[in-house]
Amino acid sequence: MLANPIPWPDGNRCAVALTWDVDADSGLNYAHPNSADNLVATQSFVRYGPSIAVPRLMEIFRRLELRLTFFVPGWVIESYPAAIELIVSNGHEVGLHGYMHERSNQLTRDEEAGVLVRSIEAYSKRIGGRPRGWRAPGFAFSKHSLDLLVNAGFDYDSSLMGDDIPYSLQGTSGQLVELPTDWTLDDWPYYMHNRDFGYTMPISAPARAMEVFRAEFDAAHTYGALWISVWHPFLSGRLSKFHAIVELIEYMRSRGDVWFARLDEICDHVRNLETRGKWRPSVVRIPS
Amino acid sequence: MLANPIPWPDGNRCAVALTWDVDADSGLNYAHPNSADNLVATQSFVRYGPSIAVPRLMEIFRRLELRLTFFVPGWVIESYPAAIELIVSNGHEVGLHGYMHERSNQLTRDEEAGVLVRSIEAYSKRIGGRPRGWRAPGFAFSKHSLDLLVNAGFDYDSSLMGDDIPYSLQGTSGQLVELPTDWTLDDWPYYMHNRDFGYTMPISAPARAMEVFRAEFDAAHTYGALWISVWHPFLSGRLSKFHAIVELIEYMRSRGDVWFARLDEICDHVRNLETRGKWRPSVVRIPS
Amino acid sequence: MLANPIPWPDGNRCAVALTWDVDADSGLNYAHPNSADNLVATQSFVRYGPSIAVPRLMEIFRRLELRLTFFVPGWVIESYPAAIELIVSNGHEVGLHGYMHERSNQLTRDEEAGVLVRSIEAYSKRIGGRPRGWRAPGFAFSKHSLDLLVNAGFDYDSSLMGDDIPYSLQGTSGQLVELPTDWTLDDWPYYMHNRDFGYTMPISAPARAMEVFRAEFDAAHTYGALWISVWHPFLSGRLSKFHAIVELIEYMRSRGDVWFARLDEICDHVRNLETRGKWRPSVVRIPS
Amino acid sequence: MLANPIPWPDGNRCAVALTWDVDADSGLNYAHPNSADNLVATQSFVRYGPSIAVPRLMEIFRRLELRLTFFVPGWVIESYPAAIELIVSNGHEVGLHGYMHERSNQLTRDEEAGVLVRSIEAYSKRIGGRPRGWRAPGFAFSKHSLDLLVNAGFDYDSSLMGDDIPYSLQGTSGQLVELPTDWTLDDWPYYMHNRDFGYTMPISAPARAMEVFRAEFDAAHTYGALWISVWHPFLSGRLSKFHAIVELIEYMRSRGDVWFARLDEICDHVRNLETRGKWRPSVVRIPS
Repeated sequence: MLANPIPWPDGNRCAVALTWDVDADSGLNYAHPNSADNLVATQSFVRYGPSIAVPRLMEIFRRLELRLTFFVPGWVIESYPAAIELIVSNGHEVGLHGYMHERSNQLTRDEEAGVLVRSIEAYSKRIGGRPRGWRAPGFAFSKHSLDLLVNAGFDYDSSLMGDDIPYSLQGTSGQLVELPTDWTLDDWPYYMHNRDFGYTMPISAPARAMEVFRAEFDAAHTYGALWISVWHPFLSGRLSKFHAIVELIEYMRSRGDVWFARLDEICDHVRNLETRGKWRPSVVRIPS
Repeated sequence: MLANPIPWPDGNRCAVALTWDVDADSGLNYAHPNSADNLVATQSFVRYGPSIAVPRLMEIFRRLELRLTFFVPGWVIESYPAAIELIVSNGHEVGLHGYMHERSNQLTRDEEAGVLVRSIEAYSKRIGGRPRGWRAPGFAFSKHSLDLLVNAGFDYDSSLMGDDIPYSLQGTSGQLVELPTDWTLDDWPYYMHNRDFGYTMPISAPARAMEVFRAEFDAAHTYGALWISVWHPFLSGRLSKFHAIVELIEYMRSRGDVWFARLDEICDHVRNLETRGKWRPSVVRIPS
Repeated sequence: MLANPIPWPDGNRCAVALTWDVDADSGLNYAHPNSADNLVATQSFVRYGPSIAVPRLMEIFRRLELRLTFFVPGWVIESYPAAIELIVSNGHEVGLHGYMHERSNQLTRDEEAGVLVRSIEAYSKRIGGRPRGWRAPGFAFSKHSLDLLVNAGFDYDSSLMGDDIPYSLQGTSGQLVELPTDWTLDDWPYYMHNRDFGYTMPISAPARAMEVFRAEFDAAHTYGALWISVWHPFLSGRLSKFHAIVELIEYMRSRGDVWFARLDEICDHVRNLETRGKWRPSVVRIPS
Repeated sequence: MLANPIPWPDGNRCAVALTWDVDADSGLNYAHPNSADNLVATQSFVRYGPSIAVPRLMEIFRRLELRLTFFVPGWVIESYPAAIELIVSNGHEVGLHGYMHERSNQLTRDEEAGVLVRSIEAYSKRIGGRPRGWRAPGFAFSKHSLDLLVNAGFDYDSSLMGDDIPYSLQGTSGQLVELPTDWTLDDWPYYMHNRDFGYTMPISAPARAMEVFRAEFDAAHTYGALWISVWHPFLSGRLSKFHAIVELIEYMRSRGDVWFARLDEICDHVRNLETRGKWRPSVVRIPS
């Protein structure tokens, strides 16, 4: 099924990256700049992410010996130092996710550049070093994003949906490794019901959402693809949903030959294959 | 999974509060102030709540020996005295739910204070005494709500979603016990389809909705959490849906070690644990 | 579960009325007065109702020996004489459903009265006699509808949702028997996906929709209620969906003790019980 | 169940045409003329169609020995020559689907005629010859479409939903064979969740979507109908979804007596039946 199959490390059949977008209240604040403090229930709902879910995730992933990637807006890094410290000290990777969960393609190039500076500053000051990975909030990667990210020294992006395996984004300033995902692997379509976010959909039982995520995994496992979830601690980190995720991980492990990895590790693997001439990613030019 | 597990009474594993929001036609009247009397079918749909469903619930919960909490807008207390009398005489708790199902965070502070006065008056006059609990209509708890509720003598709120167990809301005037729930435990996402309310979603079979509620219960039972449903008599009190709820209750009982309680009892339990130094809830400040 | 259980004929446990709203293209024309002729695919979709589905229904219901109630807008009676002739000659009842599927509560009283005159004229001219039953298009029964229907000589309405069994609507001019239904028993929430109608929901597999209808039936059968479907030939009359309906009917029959009836027969039964002093329906006043 | 059953070739019970709409980024560009280049993630999502999915489909359908019909906008024919070459060289049929995925019924007659000229030019120049079939983008077949298509020499349309089997569209200039489908057989209602397209629905697990498609097939197989899917490579061509489609095809084959065909073959079969006096399609006049 794959035109250009990628060899995964140690003969594994597929790569699984459970990634989390730790939006907390940034997206709510951004969407409602003048009234977010008045949306107290929804605030409590999204702050559950860093306050309740992140410590839970840390404990369970430590027990499961999994190190994952968390995308965090700069403002959330600044506002929730305890959660960030927990994530970092447990060996997880932190990628950037805007400063205040801005939709990049609704900004000018200058505004987007400013967001990037500010969020990198937050990262460097609170975590140290520089971030390697980026996920555009709301998947709203703009026509300027690639060059801005290249110039800012990022190694990879995980916002696009153009393939089942890693590929290369080529811009005027250089290139990034693209680690693609799909709306199907986001938890939003199954779990979000909230008028302040403008979503009025039925909420899926965890078993129904897992049926989707498991089908995606089964296909990745069968055909050698990359499986990247886009989960939110305030949705998938709730008790019933996270319980189902632990069962999903157990199922994945029972299938065997799965490479559980952070996105920076997958990025390194891709670059290493290229350097060693073992595999060459397809290249997509932006703008195209 | 819980960072600060709460001991439930008698060694029970979790607490279950089946709570009901008896909106009747208040929300419809509030949303359509000039035309609600012309929406006759939707009126009949929502008035089914106090007229048909409440007597049914009273009979079945009496048989099941369950005493529950019902949140009722002040105007509904005044407009449906027979339903209220039934609720009170069967040993259920009545909490307040606005006067006309107003969304608090769309009111000024003065308007919200006026709503509170008017709904407490309705409560005191028709039921006697003062209400102990509050649920914000539409979960639209405002930045003023906490202080207004503290000043009005409330003991607890059940509108927020910031934890899996009780916590404490600290405002400038004092504190409330917060008994949190989640949109997932509301029946609206599964059963509401009505153009006058602006909802055009598929309606779930009762067994599908119960799959969600049961998954939430199983997680609460496994991890020691608080499970609070937010059900509406005009939705979940209909024959097929209520039949499924009775089966859910039987399932819960078959699991064992469940504390079925009213919210005022849970509030008392929390305060009692604090007083006796047995457990301390986490504290959330509002505004934060 | 029922406060005022109604005795059904011959000791049956419940009454089942499979009713159909034969909208054809009336609702589309009404919603898009200036462009409906340009919506050719959606036109073909809704005209499937009288052209393809109605003859199919006639054949199958004849084989199943079922006589049902069809609600038809006056304009559809005039525009699809062959379908109407089939319905009538097979012993089914025709009730009225507006003239052009107007939403009554968006009309003035005079406009609504005019719609009623025009649709009764269509009925009398094409079918003969006068209609006994009414269902408001879009369930948009207005505050004027009851008196207009009483004055026009109708015997019953089937647009409201205020009970699980028949009840009585009392207006200033007289009363109607109300034969209530529920959005849950409409096929729209499960099968409608069409941008010209403004619906963008997932479409249910027939087995999933039937799970809902069957749960409603099981509850009606267990507790003695009235089950009235609100189905559309252009949705539920399609092959796969109608196949599932035939299986549902077989299931209902296998349960036994079900009174399959037209709504006029149920209306007569209610009036007969009243006359004989055997049962008294609850009374709802409109305006209330 | 069918009033005018059509004989299928070789005694098969039904006809199955797996058709695909290869929109690629045409629809996105049309909907967002000034900002489509800034919607980079959604661009990557839809370009997955010609880039990743089409080669996959070619490989698998070759292995399955299936030749299908692909509807492609003229601009996509011009922009993705490699994908088009693959489709044509594998023996599949290419039908037209607008030039830039225009909604025909939102154009003037002259604009629509211009679109047709331009898309036929793209077809003739890149593929050679003239297209025989048309599917209106978004099912937005206009009141002018039939005559424009007849005059342009098309043989069939597959945009309407007026029957379960082929029928004849009669316009002022001549007639087309209509090969009808239904929104139920489109993959959009089950898989599309994307804010740039304005869709915020839950995404179905492949097994749930297949439950719908299989129910439609079972009905077609039982009653002798025509089953035409409307799938999009960027949705149904993704790994997990396409894997489920391969299983569906295996299921269909296991049922036996299925005629898998391209739409041009079905069109020829219909005309052949007519010529030989073996069967006569029903005729629908447009405008009606």
